[in-house]
Amino acid sequence: MSDNQRKIRLGAFLPGAGHHVAAWRHPQAQADGGINFAHYKRIAQAAERAKFDAVFLADGLALQNRPGAQGRTAYGASFEPVTLFSALAVVTERIGFIATASTTYEEPYLLARKFASLDHISQGRAGWNVVTTGGGEAAGNFGLDAHPDHAQRYVRAREFVDVVTGLWDSWEDDAFLRDKASGAYYDPAKLHTLDHKGKFFSVRGPLNIPRPPQGHPVIVQAGSSEAGRELAAETAEVIFTAQQTLEDAQAFYADVKGRMAKYGRHPDQLKIMPGVFPVVARTESEARAKYQELQDLILPEVGLSLLSGLSGGIDLSAYPVDGPLPELPETNNNKSRQALMFDIARKRNLSIRELYLWVAGARGHWTIVGSVEQIADQLEAWFTQGGADGFNVMPPWLPGGLDDFIELVIPELRRRGLFRTEYEGRTLRENLGLARPANRHAASAKPRASAA
Amino acid sequence: MSDNQRKIRLGAFLPGAGHHVAAWRHPQAQADGGINFAHYKRIAQAAERAKFDAVFLADGLALQNRPGAQGRTAYGASFEPVTLFSALAVVTERIGFIATASTTYEEPYLLARKFASLDHISQGRAGWNVVTTGGGEAAGNFGLDAHPDHAQRYVRAREFVDVVTGLWDSWEDDAFLRDKASGAYYDPAKLHTLDHKGKFFSVRGPLNIPRPPQGHPVIVQAGSSEAGRELAAETAEVIFTAQQTLEDAQAFYADVKGRMAKYGRHPDQLKIMPGVFPVVARTESEARAKYQELQDLILPEVGLSLLSGLSGGIDLSAYPVDGPLPELPETNNNKSRQALMFDIARKRNLSIRELYLWVAGARGHWTIVGSVEQIADQLEAWFTQGGADGFNVMPPWLPGGLDDFIELVIPELRRRGLFRTEYEGRTLRENLGLARPANRHAASAKPRASAA
Repeated sequence: MSDNQRKIRLGAFLPGAGHHVAAWRHPQAQADGGINFAHYKRIAQAAERAKFDAVFLADGLALQNRPGAQGRTAYGASFEPVTLFSALAVVTERIGFIATASTTYEEPYLLARKFASLDHISQGRAGWNVVTTGGGEAAGNFGLDAHPDHAQRYVRAREFVDVVTGLWDSWEDDAFLRDKASGAYYDPAKLHTLDHKGKFFSVRGPLNIPRPPQGHPVIVQAGSSEAGRELAAETAEVIFTAQQTLEDAQAFYADVKGRMAKYGRHPDQLKIMPGVFPVVARTESEARAKYQELQDLILPEVGLSLLSGLSGGIDLSAYPVDGPLPELPETNNNKSRQALMFDIARKRNLSIRELYLWVAGARGHWTIVGSVEQIADQLEAWFTQGGADGFNVMPPWLPGGLDDFIELVIPELRRRGLFRTEYEGRTLRENLGLARPANRHAASAKPRASAA
Repeated sequence: MSDNQRKIRLGAFLPGAGHHVAAWRHPQAQADGGINFAHYKRIAQAAERAKFDAVFLADGLALQNRPGAQGRTAYGASFEPVTLFSALAVVTERIGFIATASTTYEEPYLLARKFASLDHISQGRAGWNVVTTGGGEAAGNFGLDAHPDHAQRYVRAREFVDVVTGLWDSWEDDAFLRDKASGAYYDPAKLHTLDHKGKFFSVRGPLNIPRPPQGHPVIVQAGSSEAGRELAAETAEVIFTAQQTLEDAQAFYADVKGRMAKYGRHPDQLKIMPGVFPVVARTESEARAKYQELQDLILPEVGLSLLSGLSGGIDLSAYPVDGPLPELPETNNNKSRQALMFDIARKRNLSIRELYLWVAGARGHWTIVGSVEQIADQLEAWFTQGGADGFNVMPPWLPGGLDDFIELVIPELRRRGLFRTEYEGRTLRENLGLARPANRHAASAKPRASAA
């Protein structure tokens, strides 16, 4: 951008048929979208033409398969994100790819390799959404009876990030000489062994792949618990978060950015992007009708199973569906998400049915239904009043929900000077306005700028 | 193929700059080939135009970094194979992609997902080269002081393959209904939980990705030890092997195929493809000159480090380079490869220098240098006399060494009716002539053909 005005960052969060729990049943939705490469190629290219910063995908290490809704939700049918993004990198040029991968069940050496490889193939457009795995049945797929507890998972996550970024620094940026005449392929002085020995991992290194074009793929996080905020303040460059009101978004934004100074980090080096589930049309009533069309497609057993999934496995089918939410026990699960959702339900006196209808769309994320101006007003308010640096756009269904946002909302954001008309750089890091990290092992890392 | 004549299968084994240890120094080699996507796109498309069955890549989980040759070999600079192949799948249509992945350090659930995803993205063109990790320094990258011993690794590999193929069978081929009207996304009766509990792994399943288009990606192996042969006879569909003489190749071929009956397998369901390192030209003397040009590029410290790498870390630099090979201790390493190489050196009375010059090219694989007719005669002899079902072609340097084989040898093989002019099918399995496996969990697996 030639002007200095701060711009909204946009992620496109693109699960197969869309975010609404009944999205795949929408008449125009791509029902097999999660496993249809042509569909992903089309929507990733559409997001790139619209100048989104990145495409984002969540991920899980078990089938989401709740009792009562077997066979009635679009789970179990998606690509593994890094494999998909590597293929999409070839049919796009500028948009970034943020893939979720678990610090609870993956191995740092393998994870470092695949993200480094994706960053090379995409020429600097990879991001890693660092998660701990607390939901679903993943433990049983990795030889365990239960997940490690929440605190333990975050200690492991912190160490995992340190190992992976250390492995990415194995080679200095200019380590490879490839001098055919002398036979010097690389400079051994610019190759570094990590020799990490920690609580969870012993990893010698070096990585057998050159330093990624971005130095490190962009580090993304989504946790909002105390441990999650602290980890993000120390290590994250982007946060995807679920906030319902401007007030809550402002509090979260100020809290996390306020924790960064003690780690020697500038607040601009972390972009906070709440999830937003937009249902947009030319008029508010048209938007409400669009939303109702989706809501009417939710089968009750699917609604209940969705609440069960979000609450860590609690079965609500024994309670009256039009009665209030019962008191529920604590679980070793995604506490912050569950607490957030149930707190709001109680504040608003929602019945079980009202709750599932409400979370069905955005699953705890911010749902806005309205005209182009109404949607743009709300995004602008959050962006300009300390609630967000951008948004992770969660289309209700795909491809239509993304097309709507691109055709209706983005031109209005541009008219207001809030969103780019062209990519600023070539890498995801450049487009997000994030600094390229120095190599921790390189003696010359700091004075490099002045070295002729 | 409309005729029934048996045809040669061809793999293109394509490490960055080529197979020769000094390949990257060749004037026409792509020195940064291992990390250059445009290079891989070009050579994969060339191999597809020539109708190769598959592109193949080896892999390692540590930097190959031998003392004495630091910085003088083209290691440490390659893509992770599955990430690369996913990207290459988008720019090709028919050629298969066989990626190496380790049963010693990967997790079955994660490996099953990434290969299933590659098979979906490529529409049925994925293969998995099943290896145990015994070389290099990988143990230290996974929290261990040393590799598990050879026998243990093979027991684990056998169980690993069983878990992965079981996970691929989680969903029956027709499990997904996606009926928008009723809301039935899949048929729960066609979803199967693995519930594997074995010596090394407990994996509940199901996999959260549909059954791969090929049922299972093609299972490839490369071990030639006793345990490796037995594992291959039971589970492999392709074997890449290192054989030096027609006699040895015939013995290996007969031995492995002879072991299949006790597992209820037909010999045709395993394709044995020895590695071949061809240096070809219009005349033999021209071919010899080409080979000499490469040999002259080998620095002595690189030659010694290569022997050290192949022998499991033995340092030969203390012995006279023009003297005979000393007696060497046993190692916990790739015993069969080491034994093979050193036996041959002793039989031929090679000096250390002569040995490294000899293995520099094909590292224990079959090296043939000659005219088009000489090369084709040898391939034909192995193929028609019970030594091979096809070959894993190891170009000396890239892209030129592959181009030579395509331009000179393939037309001659076609003239002799030994190689296809068009792909027979759409999937790797179809092109190799391998049956699509039935789903082990499906009650209807056997009578399906008769079910209208």
